[in-house]
Amino acid sequence: MRCVESNDDGFYVRKCVEIARKAVGHTSPNPMVGCVIVKNGEIVGEGFHPKAGQPHAEVFALRDAGDLAENATAFVSLEPCNHYGRTPPCTEALIKAKVKKVVVGMVDPNPIVASTGLSKLRDAGIEVITGVEEELCRKLNEAYIHQMLTGNPFVTLRYSLSIDGGFADQLAAEVMESGGYYSKLLQEYDAVVVSSFLLSAKYSVLSSKEPGAKQPLQIVLAKSSGSLQLPAVTTDTSSKTIIFSDKDIAVEFEESQRGIETVVLDRMNLTAILEHCKRQGLCSVMLDLRGNSADFEEILQEGFEQSLFQKVIVEVLAILGGNSKEAFKYMQQNRRLKNLTSRTLGESILLEGYL
Amino acid sequence: MRCVESNDDGFYVRKCVEIARKAVGHTSPNPMVGCVIVKNGEIVGEGFHPKAGQPHAEVFALRDAGDLAENATAFVSLEPCNHYGRTPPCTEALIKAKVKKVVVGMVDPNPIVASTGLSKLRDAGIEVITGVEEELCRKLNEAYIHQMLTGNPFVTLRYSLSIDGGFADQLAAEVMESGGYYSKLLQEYDAVVVSSFLLSAKYSVLSSKEPGAKQPLQIVLAKSSGSLQLPAVTTDTSSKTIIFSDKDIAVEFEESQRGIETVVLDRMNLTAILEHCKRQGLCSVMLDLRGNSADFEEILQEGFEQSLFQKVIVEVLAILGGNSKEAFKYMQQNRRLKNLTSRTLGESILLEGYL
Repeated sequence: MRCVESNDDGFYVRKCVEIARKAVGHTSPNPMVGCVIVKNGEIVGEGFHPKAGQPHAEVFALRDAGDLAENATAFVSLEPCNHYGRTPPCTEALIKAKVKKVVVGMVDPNPIVASTGLSKLRDAGIEVITGVEEELCRKLNEAYIHQMLTGNPFVTLRYSLSIDGGFADQLAAEVMESGGYYSKLLQEYDAVVVSSFLLSAKYSVLSSKEPGAKQPLQIVLAKSSGSLQLPAVTTDTSSKTIIFSDKDIAVEFEESQRGIETVVLDRMNLTAILEHCKRQGLCSVMLDLRGNSADFEEILQEGFEQSLFQKVIVEVLAILGGNSKEAFKYMQQNRRLKNLTSRTLGESILLEGYL
Repeated sequence: MRCVESNDDGFYVRKCVEIARKAVGHTSPNPMVGCVIVKNGEIVGEGFHPKAGQPHAEVFALRDAGDLAENATAFVSLEPCNHYGRTPPCTEALIKAKVKKVVVGMVDPNPIVASTGLSKLRDAGIEVITGVEEELCRKLNEAYIHQMLTGNPFVTLRYSLSIDGGFADQLAAEVMESGGYYSKLLQEYDAVVVSSFLLSAKYSVLSSKEPGAKQPLQIVLAKSSGSLQLPAVTTDTSSKTIIFSDKDIAVEFEESQRGIETVVLDRMNLTAILEHCKRQGLCSVMLDLRGNSADFEEILQEGFEQSLFQKVIVEVLAILGGNSKEAFKYMQQNRRLKNLTSRTLGESILLEGYL
């Protein structure tokens, strides 16, 4: 039996990540960032970036610490910014507060600006350590980092399989409730792409049940039916909906839904949908493969051929006997996934991997 | 931070299970059992049942403890036997050794004899506690318990899926090496049923790489080819092979393989195979669904219709794109699995559930 004291640098960076996540879903297109100020082994200030346009994590943490910041160590999950944006550079704030040391989870992913924040701090005589719990910090902002490096949204495929590999429409009921992985995913992603079939009366509307959750933009693929009747519930004021339809599809709306934006494409394609997301400043998109698999055939083929997918999330249900596998024939690319992990969620298993 | 002292009853029963597993694969048709004798918080004796016909765990542990067993507590993963079999009853040995207390993981699963061992101990003035880490103890001997209660072998289905639900022939290379789950499964099961296709030259022979492993009986389904040529390697002396073939299949042997037993069935069926196992005293059978899926179609259908399967083990490979799903159409029974769990194994994920 060994008892470990948790007073290492990693402990405080993990704390930064924990408090950064308080703003999950709200910071896009900015990253989530957390900061703690530690003096004599005690946290004397903490803060996180709550929303684009509002001050950064370091500013809140330094305010919280007040005079105690002098000669303290600042831990921050992402390299402090070093430019005048909507707020003054955090490097200046840290220098002004006379912190002795700065411990950084990861450097700025933008290769043009990377490490200039650290240099500025070092030039001011502050000791700087970087790369502490870096993997955790990268995972926290995986969508932001991808978008920053490529200019494109981070795209995740999600689907459910039965234990015998069948494509299943359902999710375990508990995963959609507050605290469930699906409810959490909805607040994490800027947009969710679903089949129009999913929004028929038999399904509940897509909405995160997390307290104060930011709801994702719902992108509805209208391809499989000649006449799309959306249920009134999709006009819920907290979530916005946009319908992408083939030019052949006549989209019919209920009176109450006239406000929903519609984009008619010559041919349904993922590139056009992602371009739209990009123009709207959306950094992360989840493609939820439930409903009519015919809706997804072309965009899955396009997505794999053009490497538009970054992540795969699979819920394995504790049942034998799924549905058809039509959509999946386009997945058969014999590609390896990286960093495949699993965790048990009540009666289901959640798998996550990267392309 | 909380430091927990590990001196509770559960700790010692877990220790019993750990040492019981030293004999994994060797005790069938008997259960694996471990026993530790504890005096003043110290283990003064331990033992496990090494093999059918040899003394039980309690006997070895009491011998190990010697005089120190007097007034000590005996922990044992399964209720001590109370009948004269190939060895005298363990209850008598415990009474004779004057132990003060006996802590039992689970009672004897045989409903006819269940708890008579405990009564005998109590009648002799020994304090008896039961049901400590019961679930763990049941899992240790899940095959034995099933066989004891039903008279039939415990049957596990194993297969590999790609992340998109495709039926895959491969296993991750490391899982077949010593310490890998597949190498461990082979030593745990009394028999493994495979397609003749699996034993063609492209596959290595089925053998557990665990040190001192008991190799399972290899049951080969010869159904899909008109002429079966087994590779010479299957005559490895450490593993026995039996071939079940349809009456229409002409099985051709190499000179070196004339010793292999062959059973010709009018129609390939699982019931006949399991009856054979039963007559041989085999308690656990793993059906490994690699190779030609046509070999498995009928026996999967039969197995599900007649509820012959108890457990499902699935290796999810970190790849997109599996093979055909032919064999699996017979799995579509919309049955729920119980106690679905997952763990990460290098690049794969292992799922286990019960029917």
